[in-house]
Amino acid sequence: MNISYLGPKGSFTQIALINYFGEGSNQISKRTINEVFDSVEGEDAEYGIVPIENSFEGSVNNTHDLLMASDLLIYDEIQLRIHQCLIAQTTDINQIEKIYSHPQSFGQCQNWLKENLPNAQLIPVFSNSEGAETVLKSNEGCIGSKTLTELYGLNLVKENIEDSKENTTRFVILSNKQQDKSKNSKVSLIISPPNSDASGSLYNLLKPFASEEINLLRIESRPFRGQLWSYVFFIDCEGHIDNKNIQNAIHTLKEQKTNVKILGSYPSHNDS
Amino acid sequence: MNISYLGPKGSFTQIALINYFGEGSNQISKRTINEVFDSVEGEDAEYGIVPIENSFEGSVNNTHDLLMASDLLIYDEIQLRIHQCLIAQTTDINQIEKIYSHPQSFGQCQNWLKENLPNAQLIPVFSNSEGAETVLKSNEGCIGSKTLTELYGLNLVKENIEDSKENTTRFVILSNKQQDKSKNSKVSLIISPPNSDASGSLYNLLKPFASEEINLLRIESRPFRGQLWSYVFFIDCEGHIDNKNIQNAIHTLKEQKTNVKILGSYPSHNDS
Repeated sequence: MNISYLGPKGSFTQIALINYFGEGSNQISKRTINEVFDSVEGEDAEYGIVPIENSFEGSVNNTHDLLMASDLLIYDEIQLRIHQCLIAQTTDINQIEKIYSHPQSFGQCQNWLKENLPNAQLIPVFSNSEGAETVLKSNEGCIGSKTLTELYGLNLVKENIEDSKENTTRFVILSNKQQDKSKNSKVSLIISPPNSDASGSLYNLLKPFASEEINLLRIESRPFRGQLWSYVFFIDCEGHIDNKNIQNAIHTLKEQKTNVKILGSYPSHNDS
Repeated sequence: MNISYLGPKGSFTQIALINYFGEGSNQISKRTINEVFDSVEGEDAEYGIVPIENSFEGSVNNTHDLLMASDLLIYDEIQLRIHQCLIAQTTDINQIEKIYSHPQSFGQCQNWLKENLPNAQLIPVFSNSEGAETVLKSNEGCIGSKTLTELYGLNLVKENIEDSKENTTRFVILSNKQQDKSKNSKVSLIISPPNSDASGSLYNLLKPFASEEINLLRIESRPFRGQLWSYVFFIDCEGHIDNKNIQNAIHTLKEQKTNVKILGSYPSHNDS
């Protein structure tokens, strides 16, 4: 079974993949979230894994924008506690003057960095693995998962430097097929008002959910790219897509000429 | 009058500043959005300007998170049509193999880059000005505002390479004082449910606005950092903070034990 993921090797997405599918599957590392979508759409991979949301830094915009345009479904979700490490050639924190990392990781460690390495130069790279690869001198370090130390022959300078001890990323598994029905399902969908300029009508967009006593778990707005300052809304709600109340709500939305795109129905993992 | 802005020199924020305040004010370039907030909070600057939202790439998370924590008010907003340019030592696009830019600018030009420079290496930097400064060889280029060509003695290879011809960024002017009352005001506020875990109650959070016939212009969720998978909501709505219906809605929200933080009341600029 081929599974593509947002790489490179040693990325948090790969750790999530291994947690979910085990070591046995054929893991295909992709350079971008776009390429993960492409590989599943082109059936080079049966599943694809990408990050969708971090508990501290918020939504991964690119994943949301691609879900809007793609026909792929969300097959399942995985939550992973994110532990960031400072990694270097040296084990002496005082030697480190330059740090490479993905901006998202810098964001998750900003207070720690301010306190412990206030004078270090922070250099953004496209992935933490790229950062690890760039660390060649003893005054250079990078931030990322502990697995990078083994992959790149580097030392662990300091573990768990993330500012929020709850720091968790949610990943979605993309697929062409729908998940089997389970208990504690949730539904992900995208809704957009008919004239696409009325976030003022958001209250009316949510009314069918309230009328059917459907519990909303999350709402996220993204720009509607066809029209200035108009938005679409990503909604996660409790229940399975086959449930009568969900079907009723979708029916009412469509009667109101609201655009509804169903992203999938899959088990809700509330534990991390 | 001192005005701090997200720099460096030649940034889109500086262009927005000059459009609004003219050339005459004392412009203080800051390296980060945090530093702009700090300078206005510390009264080193009377006003500060930072980006808050792009029509294509969506919200600027850092600005939202700082607004949550700061006592500063939004004094006004500025909209700027963003024109991205490819800039280099050379004028020959075929020579360019490496391009430096802020990830946001790469995002705004991704289709153009895929079509016109599919093999170029894209290198993220913290600002487009930093990118321009890094361009030293004829096979290197950068993306940013036209003003960077003059500032760094570079050539304009190609103008208006942004994918969306409506590409617009909204900036906010931060201040310790409130804006004078005007026609077409809008109000920005942050609301969060009392127990901070119930985005399910978003419908109830919006009810007071609907009951008072207040038109919502925008809603944006951000993680509530104290508790896993809970959110706060940034809301822009039509009207002035002194209006009876807005006061009523806020009163009802507070009665429901909803946390309400008022960010300011300022003229709505719907033109760009």
